[in-house]
Amino acid sequence: MSEFTVFGKSVPRVDARAKVSGETKYLDDIKLDGMLYGKILRSPHPHARILGIDISKAKKLTGVRAVITAEDTPKIKFSFVQDLADKLPLCDKEVCYVGDEVAAVAADSLEIAEEAIDSIEVKYEVLPAIFDPKEAIKPSSVLVHEDNKKSNIAFEIHKKFGDVEKGFKKSDHVFEDEFVTSKVTHCCMETHGCIAYFNYEGRLTIYCPSQAPHTIRQEIARILNIPRSKVRIVSTPAGGAFGERLVTDMKQPVAAILSRLTRRPVKIVNTREEEFMTARTRYPYIVSVKTGVTKKGKILARQAKVVVDNGAYNDKGISTLNYAGECFLMSYNIPNLQYDGFGVYTNKQFGTAFRGFGNPQVTFATETQLDDIASKLNMDPAELRLKNVNRAGDVTVSGTEITNSGLVDCIDRAVEKSGWQEKRSGPRKVGENKYRGIGMAIMSHTGSGGRFYGYAATDTFLKVSEEGQVTVITPAPDIGQGTTTVVAQIVAEVIGVDLSNIIVINSDTDIIPYDLGAWGSRSVFVCGNAAKAAAENLKKEIIEVVSKMFEVSPEEVEIKNGEAFLKENHGRRISFGKVAEFSVNRLGHPLSGRGRYFDPLASEVTYYKRAGKHIPTFTYGCQIVEVEVDTLTGEIKVIKITAAQDTGKTVNPYMAEGQMEGAILQGLGYALSEECLLDKGRPINPNFTDYKVWTALDIPKEEIIFVETDDPLGPFGAKGIGEPGLVPTPAAISNAIYHATGIRLKRLPMNSERMFYTLKKRDNNKK
Amino acid sequence: MSEFTVFGKSVPRVDARAKVSGETKYLDDIKLDGMLYGKILRSPHPHARILGIDISKAKKLTGVRAVITAEDTPKIKFSFVQDLADKLPLCDKEVCYVGDEVAAVAADSLEIAEEAIDSIEVKYEVLPAIFDPKEAIKPSSVLVHEDNKKSNIAFEIHKKFGDVEKGFKKSDHVFEDEFVTSKVTHCCMETHGCIAYFNYEGRLTIYCPSQAPHTIRQEIARILNIPRSKVRIVSTPAGGAFGERLVTDMKQPVAAILSRLTRRPVKIVNTREEEFMTARTRYPYIVSVKTGVTKKGKILARQAKVVVDNGAYNDKGISTLNYAGECFLMSYNIPNLQYDGFGVYTNKQFGTAFRGFGNPQVTFATETQLDDIASKLNMDPAELRLKNVNRAGDVTVSGTEITNSGLVDCIDRAVEKSGWQEKRSGPRKVGENKYRGIGMAIMSHTGSGGRFYGYAATDTFLKVSEEGQVTVITPAPDIGQGTTTVVAQIVAEVIGVDLSNIIVINSDTDIIPYDLGAWGSRSVFVCGNAAKAAAENLKKEIIEVVSKMFEVSPEEVEIKNGEAFLKENHGRRISFGKVAEFSVNRLGHPLSGRGRYFDPLASEVTYYKRAGKHIPTFTYGCQIVEVEVDTLTGEIKVIKITAAQDTGKTVNPYMAEGQMEGAILQGLGYALSEECLLDKGRPINPNFTDYKVWTALDIPKEEIIFVETDDPLGPFGAKGIGEPGLVPTPAAISNAIYHATGIRLKRLPMNSERMFYTLKKRDNNKK
Repeated sequence: MSEFTVFGKSVPRVDARAKVSGETKYLDDIKLDGMLYGKILRSPHPHARILGIDISKAKKLTGVRAVITAEDTPKIKFSFVQDLADKLPLCDKEVCYVGDEVAAVAADSLEIAEEAIDSIEVKYEVLPAIFDPKEAIKPSSVLVHEDNKKSNIAFEIHKKFGDVEKGFKKSDHVFEDEFVTSKVTHCCMETHGCIAYFNYEGRLTIYCPSQAPHTIRQEIARILNIPRSKVRIVSTPAGGAFGERLVTDMKQPVAAILSRLTRRPVKIVNTREEEFMTARTRYPYIVSVKTGVTKKGKILARQAKVVVDNGAYNDKGISTLNYAGECFLMSYNIPNLQYDGFGVYTNKQFGTAFRGFGNPQVTFATETQLDDIASKLNMDPAELRLKNVNRAGDVTVSGTEITNSGLVDCIDRAVEKSGWQEKRSGPRKVGENKYRGIGMAIMSHTGSGGRFYGYAATDTFLKVSEEGQVTVITPAPDIGQGTTTVVAQIVAEVIGVDLSNIIVINSDTDIIPYDLGAWGSRSVFVCGNAAKAAAENLKKEIIEVVSKMFEVSPEEVEIKNGEAFLKENHGRRISFGKVAEFSVNRLGHPLSGRGRYFDPLASEVTYYKRAGKHIPTFTYGCQIVEVEVDTLTGEIKVIKITAAQDTGKTVNPYMAEGQMEGAILQGLGYALSEECLLDKGRPINPNFTDYKVWTALDIPKEEIIFVETDDPLGPFGAKGIGEPGLVPTPAAISNAIYHATGIRLKRLPMNSERMFYTLKKRDNNKK
Repeated sequence: MSEFTVFGKSVPRVDARAKVSGETKYLDDIKLDGMLYGKILRSPHPHARILGIDISKAKKLTGVRAVITAEDTPKIKFSFVQDLADKLPLCDKEVCYVGDEVAAVAADSLEIAEEAIDSIEVKYEVLPAIFDPKEAIKPSSVLVHEDNKKSNIAFEIHKKFGDVEKGFKKSDHVFEDEFVTSKVTHCCMETHGCIAYFNYEGRLTIYCPSQAPHTIRQEIARILNIPRSKVRIVSTPAGGAFGERLVTDMKQPVAAILSRLTRRPVKIVNTREEEFMTARTRYPYIVSVKTGVTKKGKILARQAKVVVDNGAYNDKGISTLNYAGECFLMSYNIPNLQYDGFGVYTNKQFGTAFRGFGNPQVTFATETQLDDIASKLNMDPAELRLKNVNRAGDVTVSGTEITNSGLVDCIDRAVEKSGWQEKRSGPRKVGENKYRGIGMAIMSHTGSGGRFYGYAATDTFLKVSEEGQVTVITPAPDIGQGTTTVVAQIVAEVIGVDLSNIIVINSDTDIIPYDLGAWGSRSVFVCGNAAKAAAENLKKEIIEVVSKMFEVSPEEVEIKNGEAFLKENHGRRISFGKVAEFSVNRLGHPLSGRGRYFDPLASEVTYYKRAGKHIPTFTYGCQIVEVEVDTLTGEIKVIKITAAQDTGKTVNPYMAEGQMEGAILQGLGYALSEECLLDKGRPINPNFTDYKVWTALDIPKEEIIFVETDDPLGPFGAKGIGEPGLVPTPAAISNAIYHATGIRLKRLPMNSERMFYTLKKRDNNKK
């Protein structure tokens, strides 16, 4: 660490003060001149034909400025993947889930907009609906989309390396299990919303928190059938994102159309109930895993069959399914692997990206089953994993070269720090009906986004003002994960100045270089590398100036802590501000730089092909969880989590810990309590009273361990770690519960109720 | 012209639609959350001691959030030139002109603020005041600043080349005249104002129309004693500027202090009356010119003595006096030149930069006198000028190499187009008491700003979005003169795309590269050159991509009109948008560029020294004006103006004509009607009823001629022409009046009243 002065240090976030003081303006704090309030009328039925919409009453209300239905829209179907487009901004013939968009209004106040919405009369013909993906996948099923779909299968992904059948035959034991994950949602503190404004130039500005502003720009242009150059996205500070703000939501085109009609800015923001009912969810997976192992615990073959509950429309379903498959191939050195997935439409709210992107679902299945295998083979689960994991230098069966891996270290350090050995063998009963257990799970995940779109690149501009303030123009969106701080740290480190010298500009597509956005833990890697390149170019200019000030050659000069000095004579020193002033006032030119991160391999990788090359670098982790189960009530208490994470190089330990803690908390909710419950397609717990997220008060004892592996491709060796903290958590908890009670839970959430009934069933069976 | 496709064309301004539709948000359209309204209490006396200020009543008013006096300020004296600092944001001991700042309030509404201002009681001891600079310059004069000034001389400028005394001795005729110019003000349609907001980070944002945002940033930081990095200037669209928005106005630090106290944004905007009373003016000059000529009309020596009526405080006085001296040395090839100027304090509102920057004042004197000389020598004024002007290739006595000049062409073309020969010799009487005359004047002016600060440079960033939209990040401020359009034209021309592809970002010091701002007709030259360099760098990247698409070498590729094609086979072509997409989606990298304009000579030139090197390139003009004088009423009617202007290369004829027309209109007002009238220091015509500006309805027949000289240093040969259009106008009018009536007016404005009394005096003398 000593080589660095800003990078790697626990500096406070650069936006902390503004957030704590309440100065940060979130979307809902923004009120533009003449702004109207939009509201969307949503379907009360999971599936129905629209026979007619009467908007006449709504139009007559005082203060109503526009009322629109599908007829006022270009009726261009949308999906993240264009080939799978199936969603209209406003439905024209058919609604496919409770919450589907039917009509919208813009009015002078939210109250008037709500009144107008209530006055719209829609005649529906209710149609049969289907909710269970296993039923929906059958050829005989009711169809979710009446119009042009021959089956409910929305998409498929297949990956095959080696020959699993042969592998199973060679195996001493073959295990086959089915795991079911739940429908959970992002629960951002800031609900989804936007302000849209079509100006007199015919340019549309959308203000919204966004993870991928350039992508959203493309999507909105596509839906509205206008050139992309006519759309500008201004990202407002995000009150949470986690994947929810990656793909455009129909509020954005709807608000845009309302604005085009009224020539006024239009704001639409979800209520919390709307958010729960219509905000997209993590995709529920049903994962069947079949694994063949030798007696000694060498895994010879593994096969996964995944059924994705896609909900009513396509979004990130195919991408998550594909990516989960990438991860399925990664952690272990298995010669025969097969992965087959199907996305199936159901008449329910649909899914989107959510932290972990399919990986938590499949990892829950594979890592829980592995624990079962260890148990059957009477092996230590850590030992079984260490026997099979890929290591740095390995090439996986799918062709990935593992340039760098901290996985083994993660397992070793987590085992050591958690007291694994002692707790695995020690007494489990700790009180009346109270049993403790300890379980582990590992994971691999991208630490660098992906080459999925043939593109892993971006540019960064730097300018220095005349007294030494450095502005970084970067596309790295800060969605709360702290990229603004990270980029500032990297630039400050390269140039050798204090963090307070740095201003980061990263929120307006008219200004920032083209980039794919904040997902897949790619920002630190891609945007961080571009910022580093730009800073290195700028530093050359700076060093040149210093060399002229000191009348020495550039090689003799160094800059650190905001001061330039001679390498050989630290006494000759001058502040960075004076250097900038000298450049402007004496040499007569400003200072600036441009830099690019460009991954030439990206353009050679084609989507869905050459699986192993899709990701420049992986990150790894191991989590060990200790739980206490009350066998009378079914209550599951998490005692401690030990989480070891490969960070490459930790950019900011303080923030990285925050990332891990937040991710684990989300993982705990996913594992133990969260679930969007539906009754015949109707949400029954769309509020924080009935939908149980874990809060800061619920956080158990955590020990976070960073394993630094110095990634050869990352900026200063860093990898992205924003996403993966929650990936192994549910499996580790499941395994700890098994250790404590002997009960193997294969369905999420593993809540007290489910535990209670499972215990009761066991007790009944015993009787 | 045919070589260009966007440059040199009369394309509409890129901001035209927004302005015409009313979409453009000027400062006063902006209302920030929680914004307060500020108001300043001003001195009613031209000179007084402050004995006490009672703010207790104001503080008690409901809705008043802050009341401040000098005690709440850092009491740091300010001036544009730091060595001449003499102005406090709020006066502490003494007020020096009617309108001087005494106290300020911030309140919930403007009405409350005004009430609070009215309730402040100030005890003054009235002091003797001085208004006439010729009196004020005397050692015995009353002092304008009681405290630390030994005389009223604020500054001096002296320039001497050759030996004028020897020159006068060698001359056959020596002419000596005194000319007096008036106090006029910018009359921007948008009065001066700002919104200041100190946020919780301790960073101050000032929203205001600004010609030099980085300079204003420095100035405000200096006045408030905070680091420059803590100040951000966001330039709002300017409703006129003309030099008024170049130096900070005390409203800005006052609003900042009010914001710091209240933690709220504070807006202060001048009423029109305040604007007239306190907005700074063009400096009134008294210019004594002495010129020695041979019988044949060769000028051997010229000397100017200038007394500048500085008003109560220093601002741009010394700079305008110096710059007017530069121009004094330029137009004519005279072996002996001397220029001596004095700035003199008076108890009046003070001056600042105003289009022409001292040059109109001195040119009025020299060009009017030259007409007199021609008359006395019985020479054609055009011939006398052509005999003496500097030409391309000449080196002036002050050392300027004239790399490029359209002056002779300007004279020739104006003479030809105005019907000069015929009208000079034809009958002058055109009706009962109506006499027509025609007069000319020439000028030289910077076409490139100056090297005055050792700095003539800036940077520009360009980024291309994935479908081909090009963003230009440039410091070129658009103050209505159209630099946004000019920069866009230059970039579009280089890249070979349509203007509609270009977005220009140029208004926020946190984003734009460091630059000195929009003054001295420098933006086209400096920022245009930087934008051109950036576009050329970007074009290399683009050509590289096209060559990969076509699988040919980069040399074989050209881009024009938004399409790339093979030079040898125009049939193989592809749109620019597709090229950008190919780069992103196939080659896997975005497109961007950075460029710099750097003038190494700038850093070698020291202020006030080496006069001739101060300006990279000059522009020239000749105006010929035809007037009709009613000798009964004194009414002066302008019949036609023929204006020939050296543009280097005209960037946008439509906009250039607009610049010329606007400048000439301002010149007409200056020549014939405008004047800030004072009665014992008190403004008596602070409104548009009594202060006569020329409007679009008053514009006479104009013929604008652009002389294209293809400047070797300008972007595509262009020079800046924003300022100089009004420089020769008053002298040309004076000369036309002389031609019509034989009366030589040497004082501005040459209004009907003055003409009437002069005619009356002549008639009385005749009797």
